[in-house]
Amino acid sequence: MAKPDVQICEVGPRDGLQNAQHLMPTAAKKAWISALAAAGLTEIEVGSFVPARLIPAMADTGEIVAHGRSIPGLTVVALAPNVKGFQRALEAGAHKVTFPVSASRAHSQSNVRMSPEEMIAQVKQCIALRETLPADRRPQIEGAVATAFGCTLQGSVPEDDVVQFATMLAEAGCDAVALADTVGYANPAQVKRVFRRVRESIGGKLEGAHFHNTRGLGLANALAAYEEGVRNFDSSMGGLGGCPFAPGASGNVITEDLVFMFEAMGITTGIDLEKLFKAREVLVHAIPEEPVYGHTPVAGLPKGFRQAA
Amino acid sequence: MAKPDVQICEVGPRDGLQNAQHLMPTAAKKAWISALAAAGLTEIEVGSFVPARLIPAMADTGEIVAHGRSIPGLTVVALAPNVKGFQRALEAGAHKVTFPVSASRAHSQSNVRMSPEEMIAQVKQCIALRETLPADRRPQIEGAVATAFGCTLQGSVPEDDVVQFATMLAEAGCDAVALADTVGYANPAQVKRVFRRVRESIGGKLEGAHFHNTRGLGLANALAAYEEGVRNFDSSMGGLGGCPFAPGASGNVITEDLVFMFEAMGITTGIDLEKLFKAREVLVHAIPEEPVYGHTPVAGLPKGFRQAA
Repeated sequence: MAKPDVQICEVGPRDGLQNAQHLMPTAAKKAWISALAAAGLTEIEVGSFVPARLIPAMADTGEIVAHGRSIPGLTVVALAPNVKGFQRALEAGAHKVTFPVSASRAHSQSNVRMSPEEMIAQVKQCIALRETLPADRRPQIEGAVATAFGCTLQGSVPEDDVVQFATMLAEAGCDAVALADTVGYANPAQVKRVFRRVRESIGGKLEGAHFHNTRGLGLANALAAYEEGVRNFDSSMGGLGGCPFAPGASGNVITEDLVFMFEAMGITTGIDLEKLFKAREVLVHAIPEEPVYGHTPVAGLPKGFRQAA
Repeated sequence: MAKPDVQICEVGPRDGLQNAQHLMPTAAKKAWISALAAAGLTEIEVGSFVPARLIPAMADTGEIVAHGRSIPGLTVVALAPNVKGFQRALEAGAHKVTFPVSASRAHSQSNVRMSPEEMIAQVKQCIALRETLPADRRPQIEGAVATAFGCTLQGSVPEDDVVQFATMLAEAGCDAVALADTVGYANPAQVKRVFRRVRESIGGKLEGAHFHNTRGLGLANALAAYEEGVRNFDSSMGGLGGCPFAPGASGNVITEDLVFMFEAMGITTGIDLEKLFKAREVLVHAIPEEPVYGHTPVAGLPKGFRQAA
């Protein structure tokens, strides 16, 4: 299999379910993740290692990581908000751990009860901790600059702050840095500008783009990021998602429509759209009362449509 | 008032209402159009001159054009599918008349019961007819290449056909030519490619882009067209719209989100977003059971957001 042109990380089991109104049973999560992998997703953020009393939907993340590890070829990603979460991720065997570092100080306090600098200090500790492990047990570490395009608490977020925290994460030893529009404030011009500035500072360590569709601009922002050279995208099936600690945050960019956009453009994703729609059925069947979004699954593929691959 | 960076033509009263499940009373149409103009829309496609038995929602177009003409500064656009429709548009006093010419032969037959070439012959007759009028009574004439990015009946539409029909419309004497994604098949790469090819053939006569959001790509396609130099966009409030003679066509690109995208990018539209949301209330109040779309009106503007103007 040739490497696809873009790498899409499905974050629905983490970003989506942590904000869903309905709890998805553990068995259903496993079935959904298996269906996603069967559709060609090779990277799935399966959960987060946060206290279960704060986010009950994430209480089974350890078991979900274990299930993900049983799927050949799947990179199992988990979110950790601190050293303790990282230790749990290590125990579970996550292949990649993402740390959210909010460029908005207000959101950082709300989300992880730390300043961005304190959060980056946690990331450094985790990177040091990783060095003590055998080489085959060291997960990839990603620093994700959250609220990188604005914040519902703070309002605008200075681009200098985004560049600064992204640079600190890269210098701390993160393998990759992502920029996240946690609350759906980004616009395409800003996306190009901020990604360009961060790339000028940290080069190839800048990898992922994480957009929300709160104001309908998810795909336009993804297109702008692609044009700016980004090749790694987070998205969520059915547009599930938001941030429980950022008021007004809603819906991630929708995996189904994102994959359709790229494939229609001739950009390969490695994902089979028909199988992706099957995985959507698994999701809808598991939490049927949860609202799901996405135009392409409803409209169907264009007549005579063939995927880029 | 400085000319805005982009010109948005609201097509909801035509493209939206012709496909709505609920008839909007004439008085409500007038109130909605007034509210749209008050928000800063300076070009509104208010209706089409088609037989009322085919599309009852358009039966009052003459009266609606007259209302539009009473609003200072508003360019009143009407659609005509043939010479007879054009004559009615002249009688009503439309400032601009749009003729749909489908690049898909199957859609052309379904939509206007003519081949594209026959339809272009009708446009030529209308242009000749216009020459017989006093200068102050001559409307602008736009040729819109429909199904320019694919067709639910025919499947893919050759780009050569799109270039050919656009060129024939320009050479026939149309003041402007638009490309329309009638059924929501377009993708951003295709948008750039087709607009570039048509511009190479007809230069500045290529003006408008008309996108549907059927597969969620409306804003991404608008962004691609903007990057390709397009400055005239059709959109529909609440994403109303479709084509009654193109199966599976649904929702236009959403005015509210399109205006937000441009304004957030620092591209002026001349439209006041808060007043635009008021006009949406007028629409929703007039046909409350009709589904409307749009993220920005629901999410609200970002904290501290200021328009480009």
